[in-house]
Amino acid sequence: MSIEMQSHQAEAAPAEEPLSQWLINMPEPPTMWQEFVGYIRTNVLSKKRNKMKKKPSNQVYSYLKSVFPILIWGRQYKLNMFKKDLMAGLTLASLCIPQSIGYANLAGLDPEYGLYTSVVPPLIYSMMGSSRELAIGPVAVVSLLLSSMVSDLQDPVTDPIAYRKIVFTATFFAGAFQAIFGLFRLGFLMDFLSHAALVGFMAGAAIVIGLQQLKGLFGLSHFTSKTDVVSVLSSVFHSLHHPWQPLNFVIGSSFLIFILLARFLGKRNKKLFWIPAMAPLISVILATLIVYLTNAETRGVKIVKNIKPGFNRPSVNQLEFNGPHLGQVAKIGIICAIIALTEAIAVGRSFATIKGYRLDGNKEMMAMGFSNIAGSLTSCYVATGSFSRTAVNFSAGCETVVSNIVMAITVMVSLEVLTRFLYFTPTAILASIILSALPGLIDISGALHIWKLDKLDFLILVAAFLGVLFASVEIGLLLAVGISFTRIILSSIRPTVEALGRLSKTDIFGDINQYPMATKTQGLLTLRISSPLLCFANANFIRDRILNSIQKVEEGEDDEQEVKRAKVLQVVILDMSCVMGLDTSGVVALEELHQELASNDTQLVIASPRWRVFHKLKRAKLEEKVKKENIFMTVGEAVDFYVRARTTSHDMC
Amino acid sequence: MSIEMQSHQAEAAPAEEPLSQWLINMPEPPTMWQEFVGYIRTNVLSKKRNKMKKKPSNQVYSYLKSVFPILIWGRQYKLNMFKKDLMAGLTLASLCIPQSIGYANLAGLDPEYGLYTSVVPPLIYSMMGSSRELAIGPVAVVSLLLSSMVSDLQDPVTDPIAYRKIVFTATFFAGAFQAIFGLFRLGFLMDFLSHAALVGFMAGAAIVIGLQQLKGLFGLSHFTSKTDVVSVLSSVFHSLHHPWQPLNFVIGSSFLIFILLARFLGKRNKKLFWIPAMAPLISVILATLIVYLTNAETRGVKIVKNIKPGFNRPSVNQLEFNGPHLGQVAKIGIICAIIALTEAIAVGRSFATIKGYRLDGNKEMMAMGFSNIAGSLTSCYVATGSFSRTAVNFSAGCETVVSNIVMAITVMVSLEVLTRFLYFTPTAILASIILSALPGLIDISGALHIWKLDKLDFLILVAAFLGVLFASVEIGLLLAVGISFTRIILSSIRPTVEALGRLSKTDIFGDINQYPMATKTQGLLTLRISSPLLCFANANFIRDRILNSIQKVEEGEDDEQEVKRAKVLQVVILDMSCVMGLDTSGVVALEELHQELASNDTQLVIASPRWRVFHKLKRAKLEEKVKKENIFMTVGEAVDFYVRARTTSHDMC
Repeated sequence: MSIEMQSHQAEAAPAEEPLSQWLINMPEPPTMWQEFVGYIRTNVLSKKRNKMKKKPSNQVYSYLKSVFPILIWGRQYKLNMFKKDLMAGLTLASLCIPQSIGYANLAGLDPEYGLYTSVVPPLIYSMMGSSRELAIGPVAVVSLLLSSMVSDLQDPVTDPIAYRKIVFTATFFAGAFQAIFGLFRLGFLMDFLSHAALVGFMAGAAIVIGLQQLKGLFGLSHFTSKTDVVSVLSSVFHSLHHPWQPLNFVIGSSFLIFILLARFLGKRNKKLFWIPAMAPLISVILATLIVYLTNAETRGVKIVKNIKPGFNRPSVNQLEFNGPHLGQVAKIGIICAIIALTEAIAVGRSFATIKGYRLDGNKEMMAMGFSNIAGSLTSCYVATGSFSRTAVNFSAGCETVVSNIVMAITVMVSLEVLTRFLYFTPTAILASIILSALPGLIDISGALHIWKLDKLDFLILVAAFLGVLFASVEIGLLLAVGISFTRIILSSIRPTVEALGRLSKTDIFGDINQYPMATKTQGLLTLRISSPLLCFANANFIRDRILNSIQKVEEGEDDEQEVKRAKVLQVVILDMSCVMGLDTSGVVALEELHQELASNDTQLVIASPRWRVFHKLKRAKLEEKVKKENIFMTVGEAVDFYVRARTTSHDMC
Repeated sequence: MSIEMQSHQAEAAPAEEPLSQWLINMPEPPTMWQEFVGYIRTNVLSKKRNKMKKKPSNQVYSYLKSVFPILIWGRQYKLNMFKKDLMAGLTLASLCIPQSIGYANLAGLDPEYGLYTSVVPPLIYSMMGSSRELAIGPVAVVSLLLSSMVSDLQDPVTDPIAYRKIVFTATFFAGAFQAIFGLFRLGFLMDFLSHAALVGFMAGAAIVIGLQQLKGLFGLSHFTSKTDVVSVLSSVFHSLHHPWQPLNFVIGSSFLIFILLARFLGKRNKKLFWIPAMAPLISVILATLIVYLTNAETRGVKIVKNIKPGFNRPSVNQLEFNGPHLGQVAKIGIICAIIALTEAIAVGRSFATIKGYRLDGNKEMMAMGFSNIAGSLTSCYVATGSFSRTAVNFSAGCETVVSNIVMAITVMVSLEVLTRFLYFTPTAILASIILSALPGLIDISGALHIWKLDKLDFLILVAAFLGVLFASVEIGLLLAVGISFTRIILSSIRPTVEALGRLSKTDIFGDINQYPMATKTQGLLTLRISSPLLCFANANFIRDRILNSIQKVEEGEDDEQEVKRAKVLQVVILDMSCVMGLDTSGVVALEELHQELASNDTQLVIASPRWRVFHKLKRAKLEEKVKKENIFMTVGEAVDFYVRARTTSHDMC
């Protein structure tokens, strides 16, 4: 085989211009404007184009169907599905009610607002969402985010009404941003928060949330509004010097142990999934009864006290679009929107994959957006898909999003009936319910996997984690996104320029670091530019790097001492197969390189130029300067040509 | 040839693992830490390593030589060189004196500060700089930059001393930043201001500077301190309603015509280069004499009045490092540092290329930095290489940087002798000298060239131009740099995924858009990812793009109707030859892609993975999932393998 290949090379070479026919017959690449129009057409107008073929009445209906998936699956909904959804919905509600009250507390709101948030957003989502398992409602991380950012603008204790106004306005913004992301297909914005950043952020947030619960668990009255570890711990230590009520701690920690035991049971036997799901509600009921019967509230046990009974009240008049903090409220809205979406889509996607269907990210964003807009008008704060409740919903065997409807109705009923009963619920029990949900947010095995795979990703993880822990939620996120983008920009401004060598007996040229057994040809230097853009940010660097490599070869520093001075470099072959585009600085760099080489009697050869690059070389008349015959389709062709040319001239001598 | 090639393919294929030996024998790529150490070693410690071989005394001397190039060329300096340098230096001084006074006026400083700036920085530069032609001193654009940014902090009219303090402190910062850039080899920071941005910025700045001169030309007393076109023009119109002195305009415009005529003469006959170079000084002398003899200052002609005689005075005590604006002053310093360096290096490089030597950017930055630090201690503001004066220096036949020394000494002498004479110089003449220098800053043919080559670069140019013109200097720069980096980030988050086809009778696979005659193989889809990083920002996009291409092929939308349903896709070959690295999101995307394909009975094949990518695939155990035999060295090999496999199985049936 090897002999044949070599003979092929030897014989293929003599043919005049064997491959450049391809370069000559190349069509013009699309202009920037054509590409832009094409992008808009495929991304924004795609739906309309498909619908041209249908009747107008069908158009409206199919459009409605695409916005409200309930119109599709609703027709095939059957009774035996409802049985399963009913059971799942009731299980969900029993977990949702205590969690909602706890998360509302974490968000700095009265308990009923958590319950409201478990009513309207799930109902809207069930009309528009395409996930079958996602359980919508308040979640820990978003509650923390909201409270930590809004309390910078307005203290929730001194003026709870103003605080609430800001929360609802931020919720409206979050919903609006989510809907806009969905409408304009900006889902890629979610990607900016990489998986590693998210793991670090969630773990940091979990610890911060856990520390916040110390207030409830110890029954402390004075507590910092900051979220970083240092202020929270110092606040706890200061408070512990004052008299505190150990009864709170006893109640809280004993029920925490109960919930954790229930979870342990549920994990060992998958059929007992309902035990950990019911445990929080049982704890609430038991603890409330104990307090009520023993009058423990008189002995320092903090209780929830008044919860306003009744359904969600409208909050349109509480939205403030002319306040002094509007810009900051919008910023809070966009951060919550992104974090909420990232969590919902991650959770939704992972369960969709288990059941074997795909979620449309853009539709999900629309659904979440309208859920939150509707929520902000009905006294809800930002809702999203909860990981723990979605898992319960899935285990309970939900079939469709009807389980969310069942849950919402149950919560509505309990808002009428249960609120009077919740008067005596100790706050310590809410803290222990939140604490019990936190371990799910800390993904240690995920972090280990990231450490093994990619050290820089791990650095991003650690930055997000420490940023959230010791500075603030925003700084943690900013750090993570900043490092992620720095990596991208660094790889653009410092691309690699590799020396290539031939893998013996083949036509393949590989990086001589990757393939140490690849052989170089004397008098030829083959370099590959590994950057998709040869542009202002890297053109000078690439030019200097190439000139340095040439100098090295000429000085014989390149390991092979025998090359020294004996053979001066005659040809530099530039493999441009990875370069997708040039800007003017790139063109200038190539021109300078050509000139510099020409002044040293060295020929610059360009191999496998891509579409736009070749086109731009022509435009810049660089093609004429380098000369057409020095542009080759492949590195192999170029090397063969020059090796043959040299042999011929040797023969002549 | 073609038959042979095909036979080669057919026969090469049966050999078991023909190319994967290369993949197996690949060494481990360096870790992030090793790369970092290597980077530091080559970039920061490179000098020391080279010097290890020499004696310690030689070490010191060669270090001194590298910092002070005057030690190298000074030894070979000859008398006939000095004759040329003397002539060039005197010509330079005659242009430099009026320009320096005018630019000081533009910078909001008294005229003597412009002359000071033409003394100390050129002297320091002549010791440390490596360019032979660069004429150092105040320039128009940096003067404008300084005055526009510093007057935001302190009005130069109400408190000139405080204004001067800020200017000197900013100059110190500019010098310090330049020296740091040079020391730490941060020259690449200059690249961020692309050539296109610079052309637009310079043109905008020239127009802004020209408009500023209307004040001097019309002899206006009230004038805005803002630099944008709208405020300047409205200020001019408002002032023209008040009584103004037309004599100023008559003097200014007649001498402007004289200078322009002189330049026209100089351009037509290259030997008369000294006429345009002397014209400004002649104008100053003539105009001053006219005013002095006719007592025109009593008839409303504005004159320069007092210029303090004497050399540079120390200004160490005027540097303020504890003022309230320190952060902003440092920002002004870094902006001036970058603009000044960009201009100096661009000018220096272009003349060095003419004379056939290369400038070391890092050394130039050090030299400019120390020049400006020394300047800030001796009442100078930011100096840099002037384009117009460097051209005069070159035309006057300068041999070395000694011409700068001659110029500096001449300016020093004139500071003692000439200042009394300059009392009667009309300010209108300074305006016309600045105006006459502006056309050189507007590079229309350069802009046209950019328009032809790259539309996006032209957009950057226009953004910088309009930003400087209608908003402010900083906003113009920010816009240009912002758009430039948006392009880099966009190309990273939206990379192209191209379908490849075989160029008939070859082993080459090309983009089917670039080579429409390339043929696809039925049942195989070959895709190439053109991004150096498969990372968080583009992993989902690339995965979706690949899945969409597959769907298209399966739905038969892909032009070839006959493929429809008859042949389902069996193999997807992913050409990863341009992908240099993966992060965890990239690994996850590949995993998901593999799973999704596997559930459709389609095989994912990876062709030509690069060093780090292959290594990471192994780490992530993805290699096992995809199976080793589905990783190939080249696309051609993979295609041949599957075509053969299918033929074999067909034969079996």
